[in-house]
Amino acid sequence: MAGICKVSFLPDDKTIEVRSGITILAAAGKAGVFVNSLCGGDGVCGRCGVIVRKGTVTGGSTDFFSHEQIQQGHILACEGRIESDVIVEIPEHTRLSGTPEFIEADVHQPPEVRKLAHRQMALAPLVRKTYVELPEPTLDDNQSDLQRLEHGLKDQFKTQGFQMGLKVTRRLPDLLRQNDWKVTAMTGHRGPLTEIIDVEPGKTSRRNMCIAADVGTTTVVCHLVDLCDGQTLGKAGKYNSQIRYGGDIIRRIIHASESGSHDELRKSIVGDLNDLILQLVTKHRLSTKDISLVSVAGNTTMVHLLAGLPVANIRKEPYIGVAYDLPPFRAAETGLQIHPRGLLYCLPCVAGFVGADTVAGILASGMMRDDNVRMLIDIGTNGEIVVGNKDFLVCASASAGPAFEGGECSCGMRASSGAIDHIRLLDADTVLSFSTINSGDPVGICGTGYIDAIAEMLRVGVIDKTGRISAEASPARIRTSSDGQLEYLLTEPEGNGDNPDVTITQEDINNIMRAKGAIFAAESVLLHALNMTFDDVAEVMVAGAFGNFLNVDNSVFIGLLPDVPSEKLRFVGNTSLAGAKMAALSADCYEEIFRIAANTTYFELSTEPTFMYQFVSACFFPHTNLDLFPSVMAALAKKSE
Amino acid sequence: MAGICKVSFLPDDKTIEVRSGITILAAAGKAGVFVNSLCGGDGVCGRCGVIVRKGTVTGGSTDFFSHEQIQQGHILACEGRIESDVIVEIPEHTRLSGTPEFIEADVHQPPEVRKLAHRQMALAPLVRKTYVELPEPTLDDNQSDLQRLEHGLKDQFKTQGFQMGLKVTRRLPDLLRQNDWKVTAMTGHRGPLTEIIDVEPGKTSRRNMCIAADVGTTTVVCHLVDLCDGQTLGKAGKYNSQIRYGGDIIRRIIHASESGSHDELRKSIVGDLNDLILQLVTKHRLSTKDISLVSVAGNTTMVHLLAGLPVANIRKEPYIGVAYDLPPFRAAETGLQIHPRGLLYCLPCVAGFVGADTVAGILASGMMRDDNVRMLIDIGTNGEIVVGNKDFLVCASASAGPAFEGGECSCGMRASSGAIDHIRLLDADTVLSFSTINSGDPVGICGTGYIDAIAEMLRVGVIDKTGRISAEASPARIRTSSDGQLEYLLTEPEGNGDNPDVTITQEDINNIMRAKGAIFAAESVLLHALNMTFDDVAEVMVAGAFGNFLNVDNSVFIGLLPDVPSEKLRFVGNTSLAGAKMAALSADCYEEIFRIAANTTYFELSTEPTFMYQFVSACFFPHTNLDLFPSVMAALAKKSE
Repeated sequence: MAGICKVSFLPDDKTIEVRSGITILAAAGKAGVFVNSLCGGDGVCGRCGVIVRKGTVTGGSTDFFSHEQIQQGHILACEGRIESDVIVEIPEHTRLSGTPEFIEADVHQPPEVRKLAHRQMALAPLVRKTYVELPEPTLDDNQSDLQRLEHGLKDQFKTQGFQMGLKVTRRLPDLLRQNDWKVTAMTGHRGPLTEIIDVEPGKTSRRNMCIAADVGTTTVVCHLVDLCDGQTLGKAGKYNSQIRYGGDIIRRIIHASESGSHDELRKSIVGDLNDLILQLVTKHRLSTKDISLVSVAGNTTMVHLLAGLPVANIRKEPYIGVAYDLPPFRAAETGLQIHPRGLLYCLPCVAGFVGADTVAGILASGMMRDDNVRMLIDIGTNGEIVVGNKDFLVCASASAGPAFEGGECSCGMRASSGAIDHIRLLDADTVLSFSTINSGDPVGICGTGYIDAIAEMLRVGVIDKTGRISAEASPARIRTSSDGQLEYLLTEPEGNGDNPDVTITQEDINNIMRAKGAIFAAESVLLHALNMTFDDVAEVMVAGAFGNFLNVDNSVFIGLLPDVPSEKLRFVGNTSLAGAKMAALSADCYEEIFRIAANTTYFELSTEPTFMYQFVSACFFPHTNLDLFPSVMAALAKKSE
Repeated sequence: MAGICKVSFLPDDKTIEVRSGITILAAAGKAGVFVNSLCGGDGVCGRCGVIVRKGTVTGGSTDFFSHEQIQQGHILACEGRIESDVIVEIPEHTRLSGTPEFIEADVHQPPEVRKLAHRQMALAPLVRKTYVELPEPTLDDNQSDLQRLEHGLKDQFKTQGFQMGLKVTRRLPDLLRQNDWKVTAMTGHRGPLTEIIDVEPGKTSRRNMCIAADVGTTTVVCHLVDLCDGQTLGKAGKYNSQIRYGGDIIRRIIHASESGSHDELRKSIVGDLNDLILQLVTKHRLSTKDISLVSVAGNTTMVHLLAGLPVANIRKEPYIGVAYDLPPFRAAETGLQIHPRGLLYCLPCVAGFVGADTVAGILASGMMRDDNVRMLIDIGTNGEIVVGNKDFLVCASASAGPAFEGGECSCGMRASSGAIDHIRLLDADTVLSFSTINSGDPVGICGTGYIDAIAEMLRVGVIDKTGRISAEASPARIRTSSDGQLEYLLTEPEGNGDNPDVTITQEDINNIMRAKGAIFAAESVLLHALNMTFDDVAEVMVAGAFGNFLNVDNSVFIGLLPDVPSEKLRFVGNTSLAGAKMAALSADCYEEIFRIAANTTYFELSTEPTFMYQFVSACFFPHTNLDLFPSVMAALAKKSE
């Protein structure tokens, strides 16, 4: 018979009661304690190691721990089953530290958003608050209460008509009379119609905020924006709590498709957004009621999960989502805690793997209005590529895998405390300099760190153009790992303090190569299909939160980014969030983004015969065709002189 | 301490437990037993007489019963307070017999509706069901499920866009795949947009019905209409159960405005509609799920109560309703039991006392498209008058009171079994013939009966042109009533079997004169304001369920209807219901009715200085200005020869 066990998690000191026999990972999920997991609980990624300080836990495998560690209580949270009251410690590297580092630097905000913020674009937010003083009815002016209100609003709106829900209509007569016919109408853009969402007593038109959100597979970022002047009041971000169900989209979809689990993922992402919203309103001394709308960009799966739409078919060929153009909904219908009648605007997607984040990126970049052809590259768990101008827009999605977000590499980690984010080598034996996030002791490597490290290893001859580690390049730093492959030591050979060594294995290099190869191949296939080369591209825009922190030279050096003149390469930051913000601030932008989605042609790489050829060609540092990388060729030539 | 008493009602044999001290009327309301009441429980109309067969009831006044009756247990239900277990009999005349007699004769259906039914007008119902067979998605045709469905529907709709609620969207992928991509979309007209209300497996497009309803103060009538071919499948009607709260609009509003009572009236009318819907679907072997929409016309107060909107301000100067143009709502939101996602379309009103019934009447009459000026007179508890053509529409509401619906007259009753509906007098002493509804024993007089009786009394000299009863006209039939006024006996002087005598008192005649005077004055004021006379009016249309049964000559004779050539006078039946049906069957008609409401000018009689003069002039049989009634003048002249 299953008993009830008390589980306490350290260091958060959260306690929960569970039925005996469930895994520590499941218990942590119930307790709201985050445990790192890339594989979603399959026992294969080894990221969810925890330490059982007290009590009985059974069933852990021995693959990821030393005998000593096992004796100390180390176990995979996804495998250890709770059999008694236990105390479990989540060690630093298994925790998700609260806040991702790369929220967004304003410096890279696209000019359109900056213009908008400075009101050079017409500010016409999706939800408006309009104060009206209405004339009292008389026998000669006997419009209904609703007609009177609409009449008072009419001049300020371009709309085919107003609509009002029954609940608000029922409250209208008392509201008008008790407030001397002076009220504030909260109105929402609904295509050709305008909904009078709510009517508030007196003048509340100055309190009208929105949340613009970018819901990524790995991180969720929210900006608090004042809809009255377009100013961004605050920013907050956190890791997507769905990480406990797996690091990548596919694992999430598999989990969601299991009977009864879909709602878990929905609640998880809604919970994250609510956390961030609460954080922001608390900090800015607002009430959730002051938030009139949420404008969300994100990949197709995240938008689906937020809206509670089934995701199973996105993962199966031909990769079909339920709906790419969603109308605005009452945010409360999804569980979001803002104004009880506030609206959720989900931006449109293009295909199962080209989401609203990409479309928002196009909007924010302004490329759909440009005469010149530009390319937008968004590097995240997937890499999305868009090429186009005012006449055409073509996009593709390359499954890069989570390598650039710290996944699938032996020491890979997200961009949180202790992650090596930049490194320079003097030679194969000597690290010249490195930095870690928050200057913590180095405990792993994040995406930008891998790009730097591999470029440097290539530059100093630790690896060759095929990515193969030369065993003899550095006796001090190159060694054979426990599973028999070569690895290169980034931390000091004499040890890394209390932490394990940080290394890059041959398999890690191969992973990064495949990831960058997929993205570069996608760029090549798209251009090839358009009968273009990079010479025809006026600008290459690199989006994605981590773009801002990339070392450009190194990114080009390993062949992740094309070898174009530096003035043609621009980091544009989190364009997904910027687009979500533009849509919230301007109904015109919101309408435009649906036209963008409709006019963007999706290019399915899996059916494109040249993709595999381009991918194989790109699985080389920087590329098998060195003519594509003249500056790298020159640098390598110079070095070998 | 209040005990619990068991109350049994005969003849329905319904039993309920109540706290001691509550009135029989209140207990009957709780038990769902209908008790006639015009005054709404104020103890003044004397209509709610019941007989206590067993048990103790206290508090009845003696005003309305003889000593013998009181000994037998007669008491007003609104006054008698239950003090023990009781058995209460509701006598015939206090019951509401189930079905009003004047539901609608098809013969008088306006030609537009008949045309529509024969598909001479484009059939484009507000809710449509469209069967589609969609192509399966492929890598080359990778629209989202929703895009695919919309694409399949697109060609068949003129719309600015489709919208679908989250709940249906969530079910969409399984629905499509489990039904081999063959589904039926149920779509609702929402102005410029089309809502995909629901998606059903396979082909259900042939099962798409609607309820067109006319919600009157006294009667509620529903037609079951097949939206696929416009055919009316069935009709049902009943008395408005709100009658228990009072016979006229004002009493209902007063009751609704009492704290907590508003929802009682809403539930009451929703209950009546649900009863009729269930009756119709059961009879026609349908399910409520087959009813896709309800299209409702009714006076402003009834539409408000149905939608749950507060009505208090309609009764207070300047008589302002909450909303006259309501968008479509989910019918379930009001409690109506049709398809769970079916829509309720409330037709628009013009003012607090000119409702959707009048606007629907204009639509059904087609007068807004006519070159010629026509007049529409709707005689109910209120009388609404519309004058106009394709260039203008002007309307007014005359508070006729419930006299024509059997209220406020001593023997007045609704048009149910035993009501005298037609009568002819040979002379002052002799009734030549009369008829009663359902040929029952005469127990009272309904509206058409009063018109006949008064016209005949005028013709044979029982009353003069001022309406005064001549005491000496008939010693056998004219007598002094218990309260000292003269009354004229319609039933035989030697007695009326087991029933009380049926009489018309001086006060009854005055009531009818005021009612007809108010309506005629409204007609006159409107024409006068337009600088017109009846000669300028091409046709006078008399609407209202009872219109069909009116004796035209008598109506003109007493001055209720104008003295125009008979070919200019037309009974058009229940145009309110006809308009509701037209709107349901044709989105164009639905859009047109909102334009009609917007273009109809409301004329407030209470602020019109000439109204009182016209009213006083019309309080005469037929009128003080006999020139207005040449045919009556001729008839009277002929008689006096």
